[in-house]
Amino acid sequence: MADTSPASQMPPLADDQVPRGFSFAAVRAGLKASGNPDFACAVADRPATAAAMFTSNKVVAAPLLVGQRHLERSHHQIQAVIVNAGNANCATGEAGEYAAQQSCASAGAVFGCAANHVFPSSTGIIGVPLPVEKLIAALPALHAALGRSAAHLEGMAVAIMTTDTRLKIAAASFDFGGATVRIAGIAKGAGMIHPQLQSAPGTALHATMLAYLFTDAAIAPAAAPDLLRHAVDSTFNRISIDGDTSTNDTVLLLASGASGVTIHGHTHDAFVRTAEDPQTALFSSALHTVCLSLAKQIVEDGEGIQHVVELTIGGALTDADALRVALSIAHSPLIKTAWAGCDPNWGRILAAIGYAGVAIDPTRVNIRFGELEICRGGCVSPHFDEAAAHGYLLQRNLTIHIDLGVGPGSCQFWTTDLTEEYVRINSDYST
Amino acid sequence: MADTSPASQMPPLADDQVPRGFSFAAVRAGLKASGNPDFACAVADRPATAAAMFTSNKVVAAPLLVGQRHLERSHHQIQAVIVNAGNANCATGEAGEYAAQQSCASAGAVFGCAANHVFPSSTGIIGVPLPVEKLIAALPALHAALGRSAAHLEGMAVAIMTTDTRLKIAAASFDFGGATVRIAGIAKGAGMIHPQLQSAPGTALHATMLAYLFTDAAIAPAAAPDLLRHAVDSTFNRISIDGDTSTNDTVLLLASGASGVTIHGHTHDAFVRTAEDPQTALFSSALHTVCLSLAKQIVEDGEGIQHVVELTIGGALTDADALRVALSIAHSPLIKTAWAGCDPNWGRILAAIGYAGVAIDPTRVNIRFGELEICRGGCVSPHFDEAAAHGYLLQRNLTIHIDLGVGPGSCQFWTTDLTEEYVRINSDYST
Repeated sequence: MADTSPASQMPPLADDQVPRGFSFAAVRAGLKASGNPDFACAVADRPATAAAMFTSNKVVAAPLLVGQRHLERSHHQIQAVIVNAGNANCATGEAGEYAAQQSCASAGAVFGCAANHVFPSSTGIIGVPLPVEKLIAALPALHAALGRSAAHLEGMAVAIMTTDTRLKIAAASFDFGGATVRIAGIAKGAGMIHPQLQSAPGTALHATMLAYLFTDAAIAPAAAPDLLRHAVDSTFNRISIDGDTSTNDTVLLLASGASGVTIHGHTHDAFVRTAEDPQTALFSSALHTVCLSLAKQIVEDGEGIQHVVELTIGGALTDADALRVALSIAHSPLIKTAWAGCDPNWGRILAAIGYAGVAIDPTRVNIRFGELEICRGGCVSPHFDEAAAHGYLLQRNLTIHIDLGVGPGSCQFWTTDLTEEYVRINSDYST
Repeated sequence: MADTSPASQMPPLADDQVPRGFSFAAVRAGLKASGNPDFACAVADRPATAAAMFTSNKVVAAPLLVGQRHLERSHHQIQAVIVNAGNANCATGEAGEYAAQQSCASAGAVFGCAANHVFPSSTGIIGVPLPVEKLIAALPALHAALGRSAAHLEGMAVAIMTTDTRLKIAAASFDFGGATVRIAGIAKGAGMIHPQLQSAPGTALHATMLAYLFTDAAIAPAAAPDLLRHAVDSTFNRISIDGDTSTNDTVLLLASGASGVTIHGHTHDAFVRTAEDPQTALFSSALHTVCLSLAKQIVEDGEGIQHVVELTIGGALTDADALRVALSIAHSPLIKTAWAGCDPNWGRILAAIGYAGVAIDPTRVNIRFGELEICRGGCVSPHFDEAAAHGYLLQRNLTIHIDLGVGPGSCQFWTTDLTEEYVRINSDYST
């Protein structure tokens, strides 16, 4: 079904994995102090069906406001995406909104579409006016650099990086009715990562998680938001590095239709039963695979991290309760520093479960590190072997299972440790 | 009125500042690996009126459960408090509860009161059985060491320290009707500090904030919980070092009555008007002073900290909204690391305000560092001077003012930065 290479094998992507109907480019516009590529675009051959999700932060960067408006005015038909790194265009007031609008108008003129069919994104420093003239000046070079290869898509993934140390890319495909449907995505993000994406922006601020998903499926416009939300809620909305929800987080899905396969989405009958056609099931699975791979690549590249932790919470009263427990653990400095030190201090985990604000019975809480039982019934497990637990934590990738024992609620969540290097990266002040 | 020495002047306390009617002692019971004093007590000449507040964590250490039970059974009359450091007696199951009960029974026998008149506390490592036989064996020495001097109270403050680097003590007094009423308090806590105290334990876990307040006022038993809650809500419940709410947090107030002055508390008439007698107003003010001093001393001694930050939030819709904004800022790793680096990165603060989950209008948000206007109307202030802002942040004690501009809600909150040293302290694993 969905044929996806694991994150560790990405890149390189093969040209054959790139969805049809799109071109990609990246250039240097002069926003990054490093002089690296910092301005990128994806252009569809014709307006593509679009769906987006934005940060739930009530402070929202200008490009998100403009992007949301363009989605509405274009009836969710986007032909060009332009993304700059090095400046978030946030906390920049009306001038920032005007700058985002100007960049779209100029891009539309260069790429041959209306401004409303252009979707802007920015990531980088906040509170500093966007030097939109540099973006406008770079548009002809961006247009000239357009290409359909995997290398072009990877170039876009590189240009949107800020504190990222690796490019993030994933792809999946499936065959249906004699045709191949491709999905590919790129993302950036390493700090200020706790996406809480919803269908409209709260109102957004700093660097930030950005993800762009491209497919050559044809998606009914009404079905696209639902398909995206379903994929995002169990992937990008289930990761956290530092608990700081950015003001610029954006996930955009573009469907060119070039494969000739139409995804109708879920249909609801009068009895409120949900049905899906076989291609929708295949598409949903492939989209989930791409989103999950990108979400995990972001966590893997977390600032200064030494451990990636998969939390599996079960036995909660509800799924929402399970998520609150995961968040409580993922945001505890004491737990995250213990992981950094490979310290099997399960008491800190039990404490974070206790203050998560959900219904628990401490005497029913079980904790496992991988296959090692650590805590049973709220006390140390009779099988607890401190040396073995410490040995388990020496690995980079950890799985911690929590069973609350009070209900059917569960969730999966991915997070990181908190290291001295994270503090160094984020406290380094050099004007 | 309340005559309180600032934290920086404590210790030493004068003997004359110690509330009458109590004796204090501390000895080595052999629980701390360092061999330092680790077992302490306070004994009242006769049962004292008691009120306590406990952690809201749903995982609660055994001594809190036993202490709560003894308060109920004794009708809030406590004669002896016993506190050990080095073992939290938490996540220890029924055996832990039995051990806490045993220590109270033995202490009662030594100090000449019923077990129900003994209040136990523990702080230290969790998930390890309490070596109660060591405590019981040390009780005669503890009894022999009892004394009424300031040095004895300070000895108790030293014995309850865990990762604390300084003892924490504060005192206040006032004269009424020709008599002097004294209040003195001691506290411990440096990490796992985000007290969320309430009148009954959720059910508690690690080291922990402990505070013991002694007064020679006579307090009507019905008035004591209200007086304590009023003081705690604006002091201990307004500090956070790392956001981790411990399972053992306890604040206990004991009133010996030895001054001969009776505090009647607040009275409510049929029209639900609240009145207070003059001595209640004086007592409330003095108790608040002692609690605030102890709360600030805890923040000042936060693990690895380089900055103490006073947050003043105003203009929120409600006080509860203001508190949520303060918590969002106080728990943001990106803001706390920026403080550590003296980095005037106000965008991170604006982002945390945005994801606090309260009603805001980003265009009305103003931020000041001390007297320096940094952000006005959600954008950089025209008066922003980066060098001056950086200069301000070089100080150890900072005041950050946030005005949300949408309502009358406000709060004050005290927190710290997040340094590499904090990570080192809490990730250091040595078996």
